Amino acid sequence: MEAKLHELKRRLIEANDLSTAAAVLYWDQSTYMPSGGAAARGRQMATLERLAHEKFTDPAIGRLLDALEPYAASLPYDADDAALLRVTRRLYEREVRVPADFTALLAHHTAESYQVWAEARPANDFARVQPYLEKTLDLSRQLADFFPGYEHIADPLIDFSDYGMKASTVRQIFGELREQLVPIVQAITAQEPLDDACLHQHYPEAQQLGFGLEVIKRFGYDFERGRQDKTHHPYEIRLASGDVRITTRVKEDFLAEGLFSTLHESGHAMYEQGVSPAYDALPLGRGASSGVHESQSRLWENLVGRSYGFWEHFYPQLQMVFQAQLKDVSLDTFYRAINKVERSLIRTDADEVTYNLHVMLRFDFELALLEGRMEIRDLPDAWRERFRADFGIVPPDDRDGVLQDVHWFGGTIGGAFQGYTLGNILSAQFYAAALAAQPEIPDQIRHGEFGTLHGWLRENIYQHGRKFTASELIERVTGGPLSIEPYIHYLRAKYGELYRL
Amino acid sequence: MEAKLHELKRRLIEANDLSTAAAVLYWDQSTYMPSGGAAARGRQMATLERLAHEKFTDPAIGRLLDALEPYAASLPYDADDAALLRVTRRLYEREVRVPADFTALLAHHTAESYQVWAEARPANDFARVQPYLEKTLDLSRQLADFFPGYEHIADPLIDFSDYGMKASTVRQIFGELREQLVPIVQAITAQEPLDDACLHQHYPEAQQLGFGLEVIKRFGYDFERGRQDKTHHPYEIRLASGDVRITTRVKEDFLAEGLFSTLHESGHAMYEQGVSPAYDALPLGRGASSGVHESQSRLWENLVGRSYGFWEHFYPQLQMVFQAQLKDVSLDTFYRAINKVERSLIRTDADEVTYNLHVMLRFDFELALLEGRMEIRDLPDAWRERFRADFGIVPPDDRDGVLQDVHWFGGTIGGAFQGYTLGNILSAQFYAAALAAQPEIPDQIRHGEFGTLHGWLRENIYQHGRKFTASELIERVTGGPLSIEPYIHYLRAKYGELYRL
Repeated sequence: MEAKLHELKRRLIEANDLSTAAAVLYWDQSTYMPSGGAAARGRQMATLERLAHEKFTDPAIGRLLDALEPYAASLPYDADDAALLRVTRRLYEREVRVPADFTALLAHHTAESYQVWAEARPANDFARVQPYLEKTLDLSRQLADFFPGYEHIADPLIDFSDYGMKASTVRQIFGELREQLVPIVQAITAQEPLDDACLHQHYPEAQQLGFGLEVIKRFGYDFERGRQDKTHHPYEIRLASGDVRITTRVKEDFLAEGLFSTLHESGHAMYEQGVSPAYDALPLGRGASSGVHESQSRLWENLVGRSYGFWEHFYPQLQMVFQAQLKDVSLDTFYRAINKVERSLIRTDADEVTYNLHVMLRFDFELALLEGRMEIRDLPDAWRERFRADFGIVPPDDRDGVLQDVHWFGGTIGGAFQGYTLGNILSAQFYAAALAAQPEIPDQIRHGEFGTLHGWLRENIYQHGRKFTASELIERVTGGPLSIEPYIHYLRAKYGELYRL
Repeated sequence: MEAKLHELKRRLIEANDLSTAAAVLYWDQSTYMPSGGAAARGRQMATLERLAHEKFTDPAIGRLLDALEPYAASLPYDADDAALLRVTRRLYEREVRVPADFTALLAHHTAESYQVWAEARPANDFARVQPYLEKTLDLSRQLADFFPGYEHIADPLIDFSDYGMKASTVRQIFGELREQLVPIVQAITAQEPLDDACLHQHYPEAQQLGFGLEVIKRFGYDFERGRQDKTHHPYEIRLASGDVRITTRVKEDFLAEGLFSTLHESGHAMYEQGVSPAYDALPLGRGASSGVHESQSRLWENLVGRSYGFWEHFYPQLQMVFQAQLKDVSLDTFYRAINKVERSLIRTDADEVTYNLHVMLRFDFELALLEGRMEIRDLPDAWRERFRADFGIVPPDDRDGVLQDVHWFGGTIGGAFQGYTLGNILSAQFYAAALAAQPEIPDQIRHGEFGTLHGWLRENIYQHGRKFTASELIERVTGGPLSIEPYIHYLRAKYGELYRL
C-alpha cells in the first residue's frame, strides 16, 4: 500500500511540476517577458499543459487509485490520505472523461478567440467576435455533454470551479440575494452620490506601491515566500507552497485602483501560503473552490480594507506618504470616498454593493445561452436592456458592455462568474464566524494588528487547502450551510450608516 | 518525406519546449524567485529536464532520422534540412548512448556537489568537497566510456561543448599560445603596474546600469527581444528566437565589474538573437560551440569594449554620467585603468592577457585527473605550485584557489574550461576577418556606430546557428583553420603600446 501511495504521489507531483512550470511561464509572460517572446511562449505553455494533462490522466493513476480504494476506505474521512485519494479520484474522473483531442481543440479555439477579442474590444466590434463566441458556446455544450446525467447543462461547467454547486442552487441563492440587494441599490443611488474627488489626484506610483506592500506585510503576507510585480490584469499565482506571488497595477490618477488590487490579491495569496505544506504539489495543495478563494480576497479587500477601523490606524500613515494630496482630507471623507456606491459600467471597477448585479447579469446570460433561450447575436441588445433594468443606465457601446470581460474569450461560457458573488457572500459569512470566535478582532484591526484574524483563517480555512469541499468547509467553519444573511447584514449596517438609510 | 520531416520537427520542438521551460524556471530562480521557492524549484527543473531528455531520445526520433537519411543525402551539405538532420543525428546518437539512469545519477550528484561546494568554499574547506570531487571524476570517466573509441578520455567530454575538438588539438593550441603568452605576461608584470584607482570610486548602481544599457543598445542588442536583469553570476539565456535575455551584477565600488559583464553577455545574446528564426526551437537554433560563443562575448567585451576607439566616443558620455568621479580623469588614464594587467587569483576577474593562464591550468589539471596522473587529493597543492610557476604568486587559501570555480561542482571534470581560451583566440581571428572585409569598422566604432560590424557578424556567424561545426565555420569565415596568430598579434600590438614593450 505504502509503495503504491508513494508511486501515486510521484506521478501526481510530476503532473503538477508540468502545470506549475506553465504557471511560471505565464507569470513571466505577464510581467517581464519581452514582446518578442510571445509566439514561442504560447506554444511552450500549450506543450506543458498538454503533457501535464497526459501525465495526470495516465491509466496508471487510475489503477493506483483503484488499488488504494481499500486503504482509503479504512481511513477516517478527514485523514490527509483519505482526502488526497478522494479529491484525486474526483479530478481524475473529470479529466479522463474529456478526450485529449477535444481539450486541444478547446485550447486552440480559446487562444484564437482571445486574440480576436483583444483586437475587437478596443474597436467596439462585436460582429468580429460573434462567430467565435458561437463556437465557444457550442464547445461549452459539448464539454458539458461529456458529463451526462446533469440536472442543468451548466452544472458540469460550474463544477470545474465551484465543485458541488448546481445551476439551480446558484440561481436560488442569487434570486434571494437580488431581492434584498435591489432595494438597497435603489435607496443608495436615489441619494446624492458620495464625493471621491480626493482619490482622483496625482499619486506617484512608487509611493502607492510602497504603501500597499507595507499594509499586506502587516496582514501577514510572507515575502520570503512571495513577491509582488506589476501587470495588466492583476492576479495571484501559486508556484509552490513557498512561492505564492501576486501582481498589481497602479493608476497614478486614482488611488483606489492599485491599493485595493494589492489587498485583494494578498487575500488570495495568504490563503495559498497558509495551505498545509504537506499538500504541496498534490491535488490538495490549493484553495477549495473559486467561491471560497474569492471569499478570502474579498474579506481582506473589503471587510477589512474598506472598514472604518482599518483606516483609523492606516489613514494617518497614508497621509504621511501623500501629504500634499491628503493633508486637508479628513478620515471620514476618505472613508466615504473609498466606499462610494454608483451605477457603473465595468464589473471590475464596481463597488461592493452593485458588484453582484454585474455578476448576476452574466450568470443569467450564461444559463440562457446554454439552455438555448438566447442566441449569441442577441447578447449586445440583451446586455443593454438588462443594464437599463438593473442599473438605470445604458452602456454607450459594446466595448464597455458585453465585450468588457475576458472570461468568455479565454474559456467556456458557463461557470465563469458565479464564484465572484459566492465569494462576496462567503466573505461576510466567514468573517462573522471569525468575529464570533474572536471578538477582539475589530479592536486589533483598529490598531493595525491582524495576527488573530490571520491565525483564525489559517487554522479554520487556509490549512485545509482542497481537503474539504466548499460546502463541507462552510459547515465546519460556520456550523451551517451557505447563507446570505451575514452579507446582507453587513451591507445594511455599513451602507445604512454611510448613506443614512 | 515531408510528413516525416514535419513529425520529426514536431517532436524536436516538444523536447525543446520542455528544456526551454526549464530555462525560464532557471532564469526566474536566479533573478526574482523568493527564497521560499527554492526546494520545489529544484524538483520542477529536474522533472522538466528529465522529460526533455526522454522526448529527445524517444526511439521514434531515431526511426524518423533513419527514414529521412535518403532525403538528407539528396541535399547539398549546407541546405537547412541537411544540416538539421545531420546535427540532430549527432546529438541524438550522443544522448541515447548515455543511459537515463546514469543521467539521473549524475544530475543528482552534481546538484548535491553544488550544495556542498556552496558551503565549503566560504569555509575554505577542501576536505569537505574532496569525496564529492572524487565521485565526480569517477562519473566523468564513466560518462566518457559510453563513447568508446576515443583517442583521449577527455575527448567525449570536450565534444559536448566544443564538438570536433580533441584533447590533443587543444593541448597543442594551448602549448603554442602559452609559449607566446608567458614572455608577454612576464614583460608586463615586470613593469610598474597601471593605475586603476579611478575605477575604484563610488558609482551608484542605477547610473551604471543605465550606461551599460545605452551602450548595448548601440551595439544592436534588441530589447524587443531581450532584457537585462540582475543576478549573482551573470549569464545569457535563450528562451526563444524572440526572447534572449542577459543578466548582470554591479559593484558600486568598482566600475568595471558591471559594465564589462553587460558588454560580455550582450555579445552572447546578439549571437543568439541573430540566429535564423527558422531554426528556432530546433537543434540548429543556438550557437555553434562553446568556443565560438565565447568568441562573440569576448569580441564585444574586449576587442570593441576595451579599445581606445570605443572610448573616444563613449568616455565623454561616461564622464557626463559620473561627473564627480571622472571629471579629472583623462581618457588615457581611464583607458589604461580598464586594461590593467596583473597577476591575480581569480579567473573571472582576470585581464585579457593573464586570463588564458588561468584556463590552461584548469585544462591541464582536467587531463591529468582523467588520465590518472593526478589524484583529487593532490589538487590544492598542485594548484599552489602551478600558480607560483605561472603567476609568481600563491593563493593564500583554497577558497581563492582550487575552490573558486563552480564548474567541477555542477558538472563533469573535463570539457568545462577549454572554450574560454578558444573563445579568446577566435575573437581575434574573427575580428581580423571582419576588419579585412570591412576596413571602415574601427572608424565607425570611434563614432559609436556598430552597424557594419554587427551586420558582418550576423551575416557570417550569427545566422548560421549550429548549422556548421566550429571548424567549418572558422574555415568559411576566415578562409583557414583556427589560428592563434591574430590573437597574439592583437595582444602584442595593444599591450606593447600600453606597456611600451
